[in-house]
Amino acid sequence: MRIAVLGTGMVGRAIAARLAELGHEVVMGTRDATATRAGDWTDWATAHPQVGLAGYADATTDAELVVNATSGDGSLPALTAAGEENLAGKVLLDIANPLDFGNGFPPTLSVLNDDSLAERIQRAFPRTRVVKALNTLTADLMTHPRQLADGDHSVFVSGDDPEAKKLVSELLTSFGHTDVIDLGDITTARGTEMLLPIWLRLYGRLGTPLFNLKVIR
Amino acid sequence: MRIAVLGTGMVGRAIAARLAELGHEVVMGTRDATATRAGDWTDWATAHPQVGLAGYADATTDAELVVNATSGDGSLPALTAAGEENLAGKVLLDIANPLDFGNGFPPTLSVLNDDSLAERIQRAFPRTRVVKALNTLTADLMTHPRQLADGDHSVFVSGDDPEAKKLVSELLTSFGHTDVIDLGDITTARGTEMLLPIWLRLYGRLGTPLFNLKVIR
Repeated sequence: MRIAVLGTGMVGRAIAARLAELGHEVVMGTRDATATRAGDWTDWATAHPQVGLAGYADATTDAELVVNATSGDGSLPALTAAGEENLAGKVLLDIANPLDFGNGFPPTLSVLNDDSLAERIQRAFPRTRVVKALNTLTADLMTHPRQLADGDHSVFVSGDDPEAKKLVSELLTSFGHTDVIDLGDITTARGTEMLLPIWLRLYGRLGTPLFNLKVIR
Repeated sequence: MRIAVLGTGMVGRAIAARLAELGHEVVMGTRDATATRAGDWTDWATAHPQVGLAGYADATTDAELVVNATSGDGSLPALTAAGEENLAGKVLLDIANPLDFGNGFPPTLSVLNDDSLAERIQRAFPRTRVVKALNTLTADLMTHPRQLADGDHSVFVSGDDPEAKKLVSELLTSFGHTDVIDLGDITTARGTEMLLPIWLRLYGRLGTPLFNLKVIR
Protein backbone atom coordinates (compact mmCIF):
# COMPACT_ATOMS: atom_id res chain seq x y z
CA MET A 1 0.00 0.00 0.00
CA ARG A 2 1.18 3.58 -0.62
CA ILE A 3 1.25 5.23 2.79
CA ALA A 4 2.02 8.78 3.91
CA VAL A 5 3.23 9.19 7.47
CA LEU A 6 2.84 12.80 8.57
CA GLY A 7 5.28 13.76 11.33
CA THR A 8 8.96 12.89 11.56
CA GLY A 9 9.26 12.51 15.33
CA MET A 10 9.68 9.27 17.30
CA VAL A 11 6.19 7.96 16.49
CA GLY A 12 6.35 8.83 12.79
CA ARG A 13 9.76 7.22 12.40
CA ALA A 14 8.73 4.04 14.22
CA ILE A 15 5.57 3.67 12.13
CA ALA A 16 7.31 4.49 8.84
CA ALA A 17 10.14 2.02 9.50
CA ARG A 18 7.72 -0.76 10.40
CA LEU A 19 5.50 -0.13 7.37
CA ALA A 20 8.53 -0.18 5.06
CA GLU A 21 9.74 -3.38 6.71
CA LEU A 22 6.35 -4.91 5.93
CA GLY A 23 6.73 -4.00 2.27
CA HIS A 24 4.64 -0.85 2.03
CA GLU A 25 5.67 2.14 -0.05
CA VAL A 26 6.20 4.88 2.54
CA VAL A 27 6.71 8.62 2.24
CA MET A 28 7.02 10.71 5.36
CA GLY A 29 5.45 14.14 5.34
CA THR A 30 6.94 17.16 7.05
CA ARG A 31 6.29 20.89 7.16
CA ASP A 32 9.56 21.79 5.53
CA ALA A 33 11.60 18.96 4.03
CA THR A 34 14.73 21.10 3.79
CA ALA A 35 14.56 21.95 7.49
CA THR A 36 13.94 18.28 8.40
CA ARG A 37 16.97 17.19 6.34
CA ALA A 38 19.06 19.81 8.14
CA GLY A 39 18.17 18.24 11.51
CA ASP A 40 19.03 14.75 12.81
CA TRP A 41 17.35 13.20 9.78
CA THR A 42 20.44 11.93 7.94
CA ASP A 43 21.33 9.04 10.24
CA TRP A 44 17.77 7.78 10.36
CA ALA A 45 17.31 8.18 6.60
CA THR A 46 20.52 6.30 5.91
CA ALA A 47 19.24 3.40 7.99
CA HIS A 48 15.86 3.50 6.19
CA PRO A 49 16.66 4.17 2.54
CA GLN A 50 13.25 2.93 1.33
CA VAL A 51 11.39 5.70 3.17
CA GLY A 52 10.86 8.92 1.25
CA LEU A 53 10.53 12.44 2.61
CA ALA A 54 8.40 15.27 1.20
CA GLY A 55 6.28 18.22 2.24
CA TYR A 56 2.90 17.39 3.77
CA ALA A 57 0.97 17.91 0.52
CA ASP A 58 3.40 16.08 -1.76
CA ALA A 59 3.57 13.15 0.65
CA THR A 60 -0.21 12.87 0.78
CA THR A 61 -1.18 13.28 -2.89
CA ASP A 62 -0.64 9.68 -4.03
CA ALA A 63 -1.14 7.96 -0.67
CA GLU A 64 -3.87 5.35 -0.16
CA LEU A 65 -3.57 5.59 3.64
CA VAL A 66 -2.41 8.60 5.65
CA VAL A 67 -1.04 8.35 9.19
CA ASN A 68 -1.19 11.37 11.49
CA ALA A 69 1.88 11.05 13.70
CA THR A 70 2.26 14.76 14.40
CA SER A 71 1.88 16.37 17.82
CA GLY A 72 -1.59 17.18 19.16
CA ASP A 73 -1.08 20.90 18.58
CA GLY A 74 0.43 20.30 15.18
CA SER A 75 -2.25 17.96 13.83
CA LEU A 76 -4.78 20.35 12.33
CA PRO A 77 -2.10 22.62 10.80
CA ALA A 78 -0.29 19.60 9.32
CA LEU A 79 -3.48 18.14 7.86
CA THR A 80 -4.51 21.53 6.52
CA ALA A 81 -1.11 21.76 4.83
CA ALA A 82 -1.57 18.24 3.45
CA GLY A 83 -4.71 19.57 1.79
CA GLU A 84 -8.40 18.76 2.15
CA GLU A 85 -8.57 17.60 -1.47
CA ASN A 86 -5.54 15.32 -1.05
CA LEU A 87 -7.14 13.76 2.03
CA ALA A 88 -10.64 13.38 0.59
CA GLY A 89 -11.94 9.79 0.59
CA LYS A 90 -8.77 8.48 2.23
CA VAL A 91 -8.38 6.60 5.48
CA LEU A 92 -6.54 8.65 8.09
CA LEU A 93 -5.03 6.71 10.98
CA ASP A 94 -4.82 9.30 13.76
CA ILE A 95 -2.26 8.46 16.48
CA ALA A 96 -1.88 11.96 17.96
CA ASN A 97 -2.71 12.92 21.53
CA PRO A 98 -3.82 16.45 22.45
CA LEU A 99 -1.21 16.87 25.16
CA ASP A 100 -0.79 20.31 26.71
CA PHE A 101 2.64 20.83 28.29
CA GLY A 102 1.78 24.41 29.30
CA ASN A 103 1.54 23.47 32.97
CA GLY A 104 4.60 21.25 33.12
CA PHE A 105 4.78 17.49 33.59
CA PRO A 106 2.67 15.43 33.47
CA PRO A 107 0.84 17.27 30.69
CA THR A 108 -2.91 17.81 30.74
CA LEU A 109 -5.19 17.41 27.71
CA SER A 110 -6.21 20.39 25.56
CA VAL A 111 -9.36 18.65 24.22
CA LEU A 112 -11.38 16.15 26.25
CA ASN A 113 -14.59 15.10 27.97
CA ASP A 114 -17.24 16.12 25.39
CA ASP A 115 -14.82 16.29 22.45
CA SER A 116 -11.56 14.75 21.25
CA LEU A 117 -8.77 15.53 18.82
CA ALA A 118 -10.00 12.74 16.54
CA GLU A 119 -13.46 14.33 16.37
CA ARG A 120 -11.96 17.75 15.65
CA ILE A 121 -10.03 16.24 12.77
CA GLN A 122 -13.11 14.40 11.49
CA ARG A 123 -15.16 17.63 11.63
CA ALA A 124 -12.43 19.61 9.85
CA PHE A 125 -12.06 16.94 7.12
CA PRO A 126 -15.54 15.48 6.67
CA ARG A 127 -14.60 13.63 3.47
CA THR A 128 -11.72 11.83 5.19
CA ARG A 129 -12.33 8.55 7.01
CA VAL A 130 -10.65 9.10 10.38
CA VAL A 131 -9.72 6.13 12.56
CA LYS A 132 -8.20 6.74 15.97
CA ALA A 133 -5.79 4.02 17.05
CA LEU A 134 -2.39 3.32 18.64
CA ASN A 135 -2.41 6.50 20.74
CA THR A 136 -2.49 4.44 23.94
CA LEU A 137 0.97 2.89 23.92
CA THR A 138 4.59 3.75 23.28
CA ALA A 139 5.90 3.84 19.68
CA ASP A 140 8.07 0.77 20.08
CA LEU A 141 5.06 -1.28 21.22
CA MET A 142 2.75 0.17 18.57
CA THR A 143 4.99 -1.31 15.93
CA HIS A 144 6.47 -4.38 17.68
CA PRO A 145 3.81 -5.54 20.17
CA ARG A 146 5.09 -9.12 20.37
CA GLN A 147 8.07 -8.03 22.45
CA LEU A 148 5.69 -7.64 25.43
CA ALA A 149 3.85 -10.77 26.68
CA ASP A 150 3.97 -12.14 23.12
CA GLY A 151 1.46 -9.47 22.09
CA ASP A 152 -1.16 -10.41 24.69
CA HIS A 153 -2.41 -6.84 25.29
CA SER A 154 -5.06 -4.60 23.76
CA VAL A 155 -5.30 -1.78 21.24
CA PHE A 156 -8.41 0.11 20.20
CA VAL A 157 -9.95 1.53 17.04
CA SER A 158 -12.56 4.31 16.92
CA GLY A 159 -14.18 5.68 13.78
CA ASP A 160 -17.38 6.23 11.85
CA ASP A 161 -16.42 4.17 8.79
CA PRO A 162 -16.46 0.36 9.26
CA GLU A 163 -14.33 -0.29 6.14
CA ALA A 164 -11.71 2.18 7.33
CA LYS A 165 -11.61 0.54 10.76
CA LYS A 166 -11.24 -2.85 9.10
CA LEU A 167 -8.28 -1.64 7.06
CA VAL A 168 -6.59 -0.15 10.13
CA SER A 169 -7.33 -3.26 12.20
CA GLU A 170 -5.68 -5.45 9.55
CA LEU A 171 -2.68 -3.15 9.57
CA LEU A 172 -2.43 -3.46 13.37
CA THR A 173 -2.69 -7.23 13.09
CA SER A 174 0.14 -7.19 10.54
CA PHE A 175 2.24 -5.32 13.14
CA GLY A 176 1.65 -8.23 15.52
CA HIS A 177 -1.30 -7.00 17.58
CA THR A 178 -3.52 -9.83 18.78
CA ASP A 179 -6.38 -7.97 20.47
CA VAL A 180 -7.77 -5.07 18.42
CA ILE A 181 -10.99 -3.80 20.03
CA ASP A 182 -13.43 -1.78 17.92
CA LEU A 183 -14.86 0.68 20.46
CA GLY A 184 -17.42 2.20 18.10
CA ASP A 185 -17.79 5.58 16.41
CA ILE A 186 -15.29 8.42 16.42
CA THR A 187 -16.63 9.84 19.72
CA THR A 188 -15.18 6.77 21.47
CA ALA A 189 -11.76 8.31 20.84
CA ARG A 190 -12.54 10.43 23.92
CA GLY A 191 -12.04 7.24 25.89
CA THR A 192 -8.66 6.37 24.44
CA GLU A 193 -7.33 9.95 24.47
CA MET A 194 -8.35 10.22 28.12
CA LEU A 195 -6.22 7.15 28.85
CA LEU A 196 -3.16 9.37 28.57
CA PRO A 197 -3.29 10.67 32.16
CA ILE A 198 -3.06 7.17 33.65
CA TRP A 199 -0.56 6.11 30.98
CA LEU A 200 1.72 8.99 32.01
CA ARG A 201 1.45 8.08 35.71
CA LEU A 202 2.10 4.41 35.02
CA TYR A 203 5.14 5.43 33.01
CA GLY A 204 6.38 7.38 36.03
CA ARG A 205 5.60 4.52 38.40
CA LEU A 206 6.99 1.65 36.30
CA GLY A 207 10.03 3.55 35.03
CA THR A 208 9.60 2.23 31.49
CA PRO A 209 7.21 2.96 28.63
CA LEU A 210 7.21 -0.73 27.65
CA PHE A 211 3.84 -1.58 29.17
CA ASN A 212 0.31 -1.70 27.87
CA LEU A 213 -3.24 -2.36 29.00
CA LYS A 214 -5.09 -5.59 28.35
CA VAL A 215 -8.86 -5.70 28.62
CA ILE A 216 -9.50 -8.85 30.65
CA ARG A 217 -12.97 -10.23 29.90
CA MET B 1 -11.97 -3.33 61.81
CA ARG B 2 -14.88 -0.94 62.43
CA ILE B 3 -15.82 0.40 59.00
CA ALA B 4 -18.38 2.99 57.87
CA VAL B 5 -19.59 2.66 54.29
CA LEU B 6 -21.23 5.89 53.16
CA GLY B 7 -23.78 5.38 50.40
CA THR B 8 -26.42 2.65 50.21
CA GLY B 9 -26.45 2.14 46.42
CA MET B 10 -25.07 -0.80 44.47
CA VAL B 11 -21.43 -0.04 45.27
CA GLY B 12 -22.03 0.64 48.97
CA ARG B 13 -24.03 -2.56 49.39
CA ALA B 14 -21.45 -4.69 47.58
CA ILE B 15 -18.60 -3.29 49.67
CA ALA B 16 -20.50 -3.52 52.96
CA ALA B 17 -21.56 -7.12 52.31
CA ARG B 18 -18.02 -8.16 51.41
CA LEU B 19 -16.51 -6.43 54.44
CA ALA B 20 -19.04 -8.07 56.75
CA GLU B 21 -18.32 -11.44 55.12
CA LEU B 22 -14.65 -10.90 55.91
CA GLY B 23 -15.47 -10.32 59.59
CA HIS B 24 -15.40 -6.54 59.79
CA GLU B 25 -17.88 -4.55 61.85
CA VAL B 26 -19.79 -2.55 59.25
CA VAL B 27 -22.24 0.33 59.53
CA MET B 28 -23.63 1.90 56.39
CA GLY B 29 -24.15 5.64 56.40
CA THR B 30 -27.02 7.37 54.66
CA ARG B 31 -28.48 10.86 54.54
CA ASP B 32 -31.74 9.86 56.17
CA ALA B 33 -31.93 6.38 57.68
CA THR B 34 -35.72 6.51 57.92
CA ALA B 35 -36.03 7.28 54.20
CA THR B 36 -33.53 4.53 53.31
CA ARG B 37 -35.48 1.98 55.39
CA ALA B 38 -38.68 3.05 53.57
CA GLY B 39 -37.06 2.18 50.21
CA ASP B 40 -35.93 -1.23 48.96
CA TRP B 41 -33.68 -1.62 51.97
CA THR B 42 -35.58 -4.33 53.85
CA ASP B 43 -34.76 -7.26 51.55
CA TRP B 44 -31.10 -6.39 51.44
CA ALA B 45 -30.92 -5.78 55.19
CA THR B 46 -32.62 -9.11 55.90
CA ALA B 47 -29.96 -10.86 53.82
CA HIS B 48 -27.18 -8.96 55.61
CA PRO B 49 -28.22 -8.79 59.27
CA GLN B 50 -24.68 -8.00 60.48
CA VAL B 51 -24.60 -4.67 58.62
CA GLY B 52 -25.91 -1.65 60.52
CA LEU B 53 -27.52 1.49 59.14
CA ALA B 54 -27.25 5.01 60.52
CA GLY B 55 -27.06 8.65 59.47
CA TYR B 56 -23.74 9.77 57.95
CA ALA B 57 -22.42 11.26 61.19
CA ASP B 58 -23.48 8.41 63.48
CA ALA B 59 -22.05 5.82 61.09
CA THR B 60 -18.71 7.64 60.95
CA THR B 61 -18.13 8.52 64.63
CA ASP B 62 -16.63 5.20 65.78
CA ALA B 63 -15.26 4.00 62.43
CA GLU B 64 -11.56 3.28 61.94
CA LEU B 65 -11.94 3.31 58.16
CA VAL B 66 -14.54 5.22 56.12
CA VAL B 67 -15.55 4.24 52.58
CA ASN B 68 -17.04 6.85 50.25
CA ALA B 69 -19.45 4.92 48.03
CA THR B 70 -21.77 7.84 47.34
CA SER B 71 -22.30 9.36 43.90
CA GLY B 72 -19.83 11.91 42.55
CA ASP B 73 -22.25 14.77 43.11
CA GLY B 74 -23.20 13.46 46.53
CA SER B 75 -19.69 12.94 47.87
CA LEU B 76 -18.86 16.34 49.36
CA PRO B 77 -22.35 16.81 50.88
CA ALA B 78 -22.24 13.31 52.37
CA LEU B 79 -18.77 13.80 53.83
CA THR B 80 -19.74 17.21 55.17
CA ALA B 81 -22.72 15.59 56.85
CA ALA B 82 -20.42 12.87 58.23
CA GLY B 83 -18.51 15.69 59.89
CA GLU B 84 -14.99 17.00 59.54
CA GLU B 85 -14.22 16.15 63.16
CA ASN B 86 -15.54 12.58 62.74
CA LEU B 87 -13.34 12.11 59.68
CA ALA B 88 -10.18 13.69 61.11
CA GLY B 89 -7.17 11.36 61.14
CA LYS B 90 -9.12 8.56 59.51
CA VAL B 91 -8.44 6.73 56.28
CA LEU B 92 -11.08 7.47 53.66
CA LEU B 93 -11.30 5.00 50.79
CA ASP B 94 -12.86 7.05 47.98
CA ILE B 95 -14.57 4.96 45.29
CA ALA B 96 -16.77 7.70 43.80
CA ASN B 97 -16.58 8.92 40.21
CA PRO B 98 -17.54 12.50 39.26
CA LEU B 99 -19.96 11.42 36.55
CA ASP B 100 -22.17 14.07 34.99
CA PHE B 101 -25.32 12.66 33.40
CA GLY B 102 -26.54 16.13 32.39
CA ASN B 103 -25.84 15.45 28.71
CA GLY B 104 -27.21 11.92 28.57
CA PHE B 105 -25.32 8.66 28.15
CA PRO B 106 -22.44 8.06 28.26
CA PRO B 107 -21.89 10.62 31.03
CA THR B 108 -19.03 13.09 30.97
CA LEU B 109 -16.90 14.00 34.00
CA SER B 110 -17.64 17.07 36.13
CA VAL B 111 -14.06 17.32 37.47
CA LEU B 112 -11.00 16.28 35.45
CA ASN B 113 -7.72 17.12 33.74
CA ASP B 114 -6.05 19.42 36.32
CA ASP B 115 -8.19 18.28 39.25
CA SER B 116 -10.11 15.23 40.47
CA LEU B 117 -12.88 14.40 42.89
CA ALA B 118 -10.34 12.73 45.18
CA GLU B 119 -8.28 15.92 45.32
CA ARG B 120 -11.39 18.00 46.05
CA ILE B 121 -12.22 15.70 48.94
CA GLN B 122 -8.63 15.82 50.22
CA ARG B 123 -8.65 19.63 50.06
CA ALA B 124 -12.02 19.85 51.83
CA PHE B 125 -10.90 17.42 54.57
CA PRO B 126 -7.19 18.06 55.03
CA ARG B 127 -7.00 16.03 58.25
CA THR B 128 -8.44 12.95 56.54
CA ARG B 129 -6.16 10.49 54.74
CA VAL B 130 -7.86 10.05 51.36
CA VAL B 131 -7.04 7.03 49.20
CA LYS B 132 -8.63 6.71 45.78
CA ALA B 133 -9.20 3.11 44.73
CA LEU B 134 -11.67 0.68 43.15
CA ASN B 135 -13.38 3.36 41.02
CA THR B 136 -12.19 1.65 37.83
CA LEU B 137 -14.27 -1.53 37.87
CA THR B 138 -17.80 -2.75 38.52
CA ALA B 139 -18.94 -3.35 42.11
CA ASP B 140 -19.12 -7.12 41.74
CA LEU B 141 -15.48 -7.24 40.60
CA MET B 142 -14.33 -4.74 43.24
CA THR B 143 -15.42 -7.18 45.89
CA HIS B 144 -15.00 -10.57 44.16
CA PRO B 145 -12.13 -10.12 41.68
CA ARG B 146 -11.28 -13.83 41.49
CA GLN B 147 -14.39 -14.54 39.41
CA LEU B 148 -12.57 -12.94 36.43
CA ALA B 149 -9.35 -14.59 35.19
CA ASP B 150 -8.72 -15.79 38.75
CA GLY B 151 -8.04 -12.18 39.77
CA ASP B 152 -5.31 -11.59 37.17
CA HIS B 153 -6.17 -7.91 36.55
CA SER B 154 -5.16 -4.58 38.07
CA VAL B 155 -6.48 -2.07 40.57
CA PHE B 156 -4.88 1.22 41.58
CA VAL B 157 -4.35 3.26 44.74
CA SER B 158 -3.66 6.99 44.84
CA GLY B 159 -3.02 9.02 47.98
CA ASP B 160 -0.64 11.24 49.90
CA ASP B 161 -0.33 9.00 52.97
CA PRO B 162 1.74 5.81 52.52
CA GLU B 163 0.29 4.14 55.65
CA ALA B 164 -3.24 4.81 54.45
CA LYS B 165 -2.43 3.35 51.03
CA LYS B 166 -0.91 0.30 52.71
CA LEU B 167 -4.08 -0.26 54.74
CA VAL B 168 -6.30 0.07 51.67
CA SER B 169 -4.00 -2.17 49.61
CA GLU B 170 -4.20 -4.87 52.28
CA LEU B 171 -7.99 -4.57 52.25
CA LEU B 172 -8.01 -4.99 48.46
CA THR B 173 -5.77 -8.02 48.75
CA SER B 174 -8.17 -9.50 51.31
CA PHE B 175 -10.95 -9.07 48.70
CA GLY B 176 -8.87 -11.22 46.34
CA HIS B 177 -7.04 -8.60 44.27
CA THR B 178 -3.65 -9.80 43.07
CA ASP B 179 -2.23 -6.69 41.37
CA VAL B 180 -2.61 -3.50 43.41
CA ILE B 181 -0.59 -0.70 41.78
CA ASP B 182 0.37 2.33 43.88
CA LEU B 183 0.25 5.16 41.32
CA GLY B 184 1.57 7.84 43.67
CA ASP B 185 0.07 10.88 45.34
CA ILE B 186 -3.57 11.93 45.33
CA THR B 187 -3.19 13.83 42.02
CA THR B 188 -2.75 10.47 40.28
CA ALA B 189 -6.47 9.91 40.90
CA ARG B 190 -6.94 12.11 37.81
CA GLY B 191 -5.64 9.15 35.84
CA THR B 192 -8.03 6.60 37.32
CA GLU B 193 -11.08 8.90 37.28
CA MET B 194 -10.35 9.66 33.62
CA LEU B 195 -10.49 5.92 32.89
CA LEU B 196 -14.27 6.14 33.18
CA PRO B 197 -14.85 7.28 29.58
CA ILE B 198 -13.15 4.20 28.12
CA TRP B 199 -14.71 1.97 30.79
CA LEU B 200 -18.18 3.17 29.75
CA ARG B 201 -17.46 2.52 26.06
CA LEU B 202 -16.03 -0.92 26.76
CA TYR B 203 -19.15 -1.70 28.79
CA GLY B 204 -21.24 -0.74 25.76
CA ARG B 205 -19.02 -2.72 23.41
CA LEU B 206 -18.65 -5.87 25.51
CA GLY B 207 -22.24 -5.90 26.77
CA THR B 208 -21.19 -6.78 30.33
CA PRO B 209 -19.55 -4.84 33.18
CA LEU B 210 -17.57 -7.95 34.17
CA PHE B 211 -14.28 -6.86 32.65
CA ASN B 212 -11.23 -5.06 33.96
CA LEU B 213 -7.89 -3.72 32.81
CA LYS B 214 -4.59 -5.43 33.47
CA VAL B 215 -1.35 -3.49 33.21
CA ILE B 216 0.87 -5.80 31.19
CA ARG B 217 4.55 -5.09 31.94
